[in-house]
Amino acid sequence: MTVISLTTDFGLQDEYVGVMKGVILTAAPDIRIVDLCHGIEPQSVVQAAFMIATAYRHFPPGTLHLLVVDPGVGGTRRIIYAEADGHRFLCPDNGLLTGVARSPGLTRVNAVTNRRLFRPHPSSTFHGRDIMAPVAAFIARGGDAIRLGEAIPPAGIVCLDTDEPHVGADGGITGQIVSIDRFGSLITDIGIDLLGAMLADDPKQRFWIDAGWELTTHLHDAYEEASPGAALAIIGSRQTLEIAVNQGRARDRFPAAVGRPVTVRRLVGVGGSGQRGP
Amino acid sequence: MTVISLTTDFGLQDEYVGVMKGVILTAAPDIRIVDLCHGIEPQSVVQAAFMIATAYRHFPPGTLHLLVVDPGVGGTRRIIYAEADGHRFLCPDNGLLTGVARSPGLTRVNAVTNRRLFRPHPSSTFHGRDIMAPVAAFIARGGDAIRLGEAIPPAGIVCLDTDEPHVGADGGITGQIVSIDRFGSLITDIGIDLLGAMLADDPKQRFWIDAGWELTTHLHDAYEEASPGAALAIIGSRQTLEIAVNQGRARDRFPAAVGRPVTVRRLVGVGGSGQRGP
Amino acid sequence: MTVISLTTDFGLQDEYVGVMKGVILTAAPDIRIVDLCHGIEPQSVVQAAFMIATAYRHFPPGTLHLLVVDPGVGGTRRIIYAEADGHRFLCPDNGLLTGVARSPGLTRVNAVTNRRLFRPHPSSTFHGRDIMAPVAAFIARGGDAIRLGEAIPPAGIVCLDTDEPHVGADGGITGQIVSIDRFGSLITDIGIDLLGAMLADDPKQRFWIDAGWELTTHLHDAYEEASPGAALAIIGSRQTLEIAVNQGRARDRFPAAVGRPVTVRRLVGVGGSGQRGP
Repeated sequence: MTVISLTTDFGLQDEYVGVMKGVILTAAPDIRIVDLCHGIEPQSVVQAAFMIATAYRHFPPGTLHLLVVDPGVGGTRRIIYAEADGHRFLCPDNGLLTGVARSPGLTRVNAVTNRRLFRPHPSSTFHGRDIMAPVAAFIARGGDAIRLGEAIPPAGIVCLDTDEPHVGADGGITGQIVSIDRFGSLITDIGIDLLGAMLADDPKQRFWIDAGWELTTHLHDAYEEASPGAALAIIGSRQTLEIAVNQGRARDRFPAAVGRPVTVRRLVGVGGSGQRGP
Repeated sequence: MTVISLTTDFGLQDEYVGVMKGVILTAAPDIRIVDLCHGIEPQSVVQAAFMIATAYRHFPPGTLHLLVVDPGVGGTRRIIYAEADGHRFLCPDNGLLTGVARSPGLTRVNAVTNRRLFRPHPSSTFHGRDIMAPVAAFIARGGDAIRLGEAIPPAGIVCLDTDEPHVGADGGITGQIVSIDRFGSLITDIGIDLLGAMLADDPKQRFWIDAGWELTTHLHDAYEEASPGAALAIIGSRQTLEIAVNQGRARDRFPAAVGRPVTVRRLVGVGGSGQRGP
Repeated sequence: MTVISLTTDFGLQDEYVGVMKGVILTAAPDIRIVDLCHGIEPQSVVQAAFMIATAYRHFPPGTLHLLVVDPGVGGTRRIIYAEADGHRFLCPDNGLLTGVARSPGLTRVNAVTNRRLFRPHPSSTFHGRDIMAPVAAFIARGGDAIRLGEAIPPAGIVCLDTDEPHVGADGGITGQIVSIDRFGSLITDIGIDLLGAMLADDPKQRFWIDAGWELTTHLHDAYEEASPGAALAIIGSRQTLEIAVNQGRARDRFPAAVGRPVTVRRLVGVGGSGQRGP
């Protein structure tokens, strides 16, 4: 049984997600639909692009991930179908696949232009319901992607121009906040690979986080290693750096927003001397 | 496989929706349950009645739509089962089917009074769980509606006394705000039929919206036709007039609430002259 | 088809619940997953323990209830599997099963320690995804609980040290607020059994509620028995005392929080004399 995962910025207060499911089930009654996330901040392609790149791999191979964060709906942006790592994706071509395209990389992309697969007279405000839901049902029922529209070179899709996390001239790692979760934790895109390399000589050494505000801490193995109410750094479930407060909310402690730059630097004198680096 | 759609004002913070699903699955393990909308404003029969009238048709024929917006629970209001346009509905008789009864019209109504189909000793605060969920399971499993209770003439159900959108003596169209969505857009019940007739001589002409506050605009084909931050009018996915702000929130710009009257009038001198009508 | 119910304090703004479902479906494609409640207040074991104790029985026998309210994730708390009343439970051993252990009582408990059932390299922040989801899939597919880890005496699990509702020396019943729902109603754990006994000589007599603030009222049979805007007491759908406001929100009227003590006392001179008891 094919699985369709749904990710949108619709929230759940309205019927938008429900009617998309109704449309899918009308065309494909046996499909399994799973809500991946509907709490993307309205129109935040940045947040959704990071989320899907880390989340898709937790689903069964062959899952079709339908992403509707679509501020340009009804305008000139196109809709695309893509494949990567044995998974399938359907979404507006507005940067949502930036993370997936960087890693693991796309193996196939098609424009979605075959109007015979759409609902008649699509609305100009809700292509999730009128175009993407019926096309998702078509694919999930085994329809051939070649019928969607012309092939596009994977390099031809729209990607966000935000930098990937990178190491600067002074050895600091700069990334950004990509999500702030229900617990008020600040999720960054600075991965364990870069951070682990910086801290390789002593994984428990203290380091310096600069996001407009400053925090000196070390990598914790569990929230409860910090005192209740204390801020801490931890590698979160997406394998990236998170800033949290044990039994509290980092968001209420530190100014934060999706897209805010974060830099991590070693302290001078490794091993937790407490001296600040350059 | 029969589909049951669920619409309530329960929200998702509590376990109310979850236990209704548990009750349905206990009696009907093979039923497909789809959340249509649980974000109806508490006790807003107006909002739910408009929503279901526009949303039901996106589900498979034969779907049973279970609606629980029930401020009179435990009191004297009755519970009804109804059929319309090949779909089925189960809800308190408090106006929730007003829109469906107006169009497409009800073809059958039964009172739901057969206590043998209820759970023993129903609570007085949660008939969704103790009466409507088991009755929904009974129907979804193929139970005959004649066993629910006596037939009622469709004209005998409770309907909201709000006017349908209508054209006034001066040619203006008056309706109301029926929902405010996650994006802050103001959804009205003024349909494309009435509005299209008013604007027939020039579909792109400017017109005047009066909802206590005033906005002069024209019908846009896409949000991005307006400048970022600019207010606009558009025919939304429910085929009615919506007032939105491109990349912003109309709700934060204009005073608004569900039930607020909205009037739309032509400007004197058609074709976008910008002069205001009477 | 086995049902897994999910209860967490994750909310639905993030992808946490969605990826848990992806992990479960990857291992057990035919399992039915039902969201019971994701709106538990962050880290509120008290609220979740009361909720599951009253809600589990509305699901099909054999349901596996997966509970992830886990402030100690990554620390020293253990994970347990338990059986009670024909239902199954999987959760951190932090008090979540307090209510179920009190009534109906646990018939079996196992520690969950068999790492071969976990995902490789579990994160330290999301055992719901990396340990509990795959273990739930194992059980739901018919895996033998004996493989999870060693048996534990039911008396050996962690229980909250909050008192059960009890009758004091002056005859008053003391319990606590265990939830505040979307409608702003204050849910207590004072059951119909204790309250019914106190009011046995006249079920409609007025009584006195003390929760820091005071309310004198009687047990209503329906919200609409009270005037719009009036506060009232009612036995809610969990068979416990609730304090509500007809067509309003008790939470906005009275200071309230989960865990706040509530005492109910008879008035001197029964039968609604209006005099206050000692």
